[in-house]
Amino acid sequence: MRTITTISELRRALSLVRQQDKRIGFVPTMGALHEGHLSLVKLSRHQTDVTVVSIFVNPTQFGANEDLASYPRTLESDASKLVEAEVDFLFVPDASEIYPRSHATAVSVRDVTERYEGAIRPGHFQGVTTVVAILLNIVQPHAMFLGQKDAQQVAVLKRMIADLQFPVEVVIGETVRENGKLAMSSRNIYLSANERTESEALSRALAEFRSLVLSGEAIDRAKQAGMLIFEKVAPHGKVEYLDIVDSETFHPLTSFEPLNQPATIIIAARFGSTRLIDNVTV
Amino acid sequence: MRTITTISELRRALSLVRQQDKRIGFVPTMGALHEGHLSLVKLSRHQTDVTVVSIFVNPTQFGANEDLASYPRTLESDASKLVEAEVDFLFVPDASEIYPRSHATAVSVRDVTERYEGAIRPGHFQGVTTVVAILLNIVQPHAMFLGQKDAQQVAVLKRMIADLQFPVEVVIGETVRENGKLAMSSRNIYLSANERTESEALSRALAEFRSLVLSGEAIDRAKQAGMLIFEKVAPHGKVEYLDIVDSETFHPLTSFEPLNQPATIIIAARFGSTRLIDNVTV
Repeated sequence: MRTITTISELRRALSLVRQQDKRIGFVPTMGALHEGHLSLVKLSRHQTDVTVVSIFVNPTQFGANEDLASYPRTLESDASKLVEAEVDFLFVPDASEIYPRSHATAVSVRDVTERYEGAIRPGHFQGVTTVVAILLNIVQPHAMFLGQKDAQQVAVLKRMIADLQFPVEVVIGETVRENGKLAMSSRNIYLSANERTESEALSRALAEFRSLVLSGEAIDRAKQAGMLIFEKVAPHGKVEYLDIVDSETFHPLTSFEPLNQPATIIIAARFGSTRLIDNVTV
Repeated sequence: MRTITTISELRRALSLVRQQDKRIGFVPTMGALHEGHLSLVKLSRHQTDVTVVSIFVNPTQFGANEDLASYPRTLESDASKLVEAEVDFLFVPDASEIYPRSHATAVSVRDVTERYEGAIRPGHFQGVTTVVAILLNIVQPHAMFLGQKDAQQVAVLKRMIADLQFPVEVVIGETVRENGKLAMSSRNIYLSANERTESEALSRALAEFRSLVLSGEAIDRAKQAGMLIFEKVAPHGKVEYLDIVDSETFHPLTSFEPLNQPATIIIAARFGSTRLIDNVTV
């Protein structure tokens, strides 16, 4: 694995790769890598010839009161995991390489960004779309691999890529879970032992909601049942939202017809100062 | 010349060109082609192997009270001129091809967009940056050719391309003038015979301003002299702005040191309902 920190060096290296007609796969990350990220690397290794992973804790997608300063940074152990996963290039730019002082451009998406994570974290998705546009133009991959765990981010980036005609295929990797329950997240390390146990409530609430709507139950009753399960399993947790939404637009659904549209059930909850999100597709 | 209306067909055609390791040049236009556009085509023909011209009257860069509906559309004569200029591909998409109903993404640039044309035409530059980002991702050219006539547009697009790391070289073509005076513009056809004569005032005012600052005159006095010339030559014209600015940021300069920074003198004026802009670099 070759670790590269500058845009110009990465461009040179990948230009040689392209000359050999090899397909490039790209996995953008913020580091603190876990099995979820590594499953995306594995997908890329299967579907492309050369895999590029970026580690960039993107300052513009954190709100003023969020955890940018304390976000886990574990570059050394991340790099070992990527060597083991047989990644070809690790791109680790400084913030000043991506955002020099003169930087003044933003990419923004309306509508799908305006609810749920977008409402709770103003500016978050604009930070995400801007940095991904920059990284796509640097790496120019044939395929980009994203995790279903961040379902709204997936919907936002698919919208941006379609709207701006980025010539890249988007491949979504399934959510990886600890013991089939808590979705892998770099922020799970913030959880106390008790919170970790209670956090099972997210996947339990989603499963209940999903099973009820699939059996024909009305959405408001299925949601209520999901909330009850959450409260029983996680007396110290606090649900921020639990809803069934259109998978592309993230508009909430008021009725559900399985044959009509792909739907996703989404949940966000707080345990102390830690926010967790999860989802299941229906 | 091959005329193409869909994104998928253009992608297929250009993918064959790229496989032959040919360099692609791109000239984005809104049609109503004149000698200014054709000089850009000529530049592209000299510097690249395959030239793509787009004609797309981009609705998002027109304000609600502007001339979108009446903007000159002369596709047949444009196409003949491009055949004669030995263009390889003419891309003429419908608005619905570039902006399908689901379109929700915008590219915006701060600061350099906020003065002059950006202040007078709110939303104009966001329309320009968004459509050029889309076209760059469709065409993926090695070089894009822009006219110096739209100096602030050049500064805005250079900023966007640098900030988002688009892998494209930007080549600027000099302003082409009628009899060395009125800058070529698709909107010149709106001018009456008398307005056309008076419109010489723009280039005369710029030349006076330029010659005075180069000879060491203070900026406010050079500007005043430029305004006097304008008013003498064009009693029916109305200056919207006349200023000397930093060529990259479009911040107005209050003092001018020729060795310090590239500067541009810019002017906008109205003749009846027709707006004309022009500039000279210093």
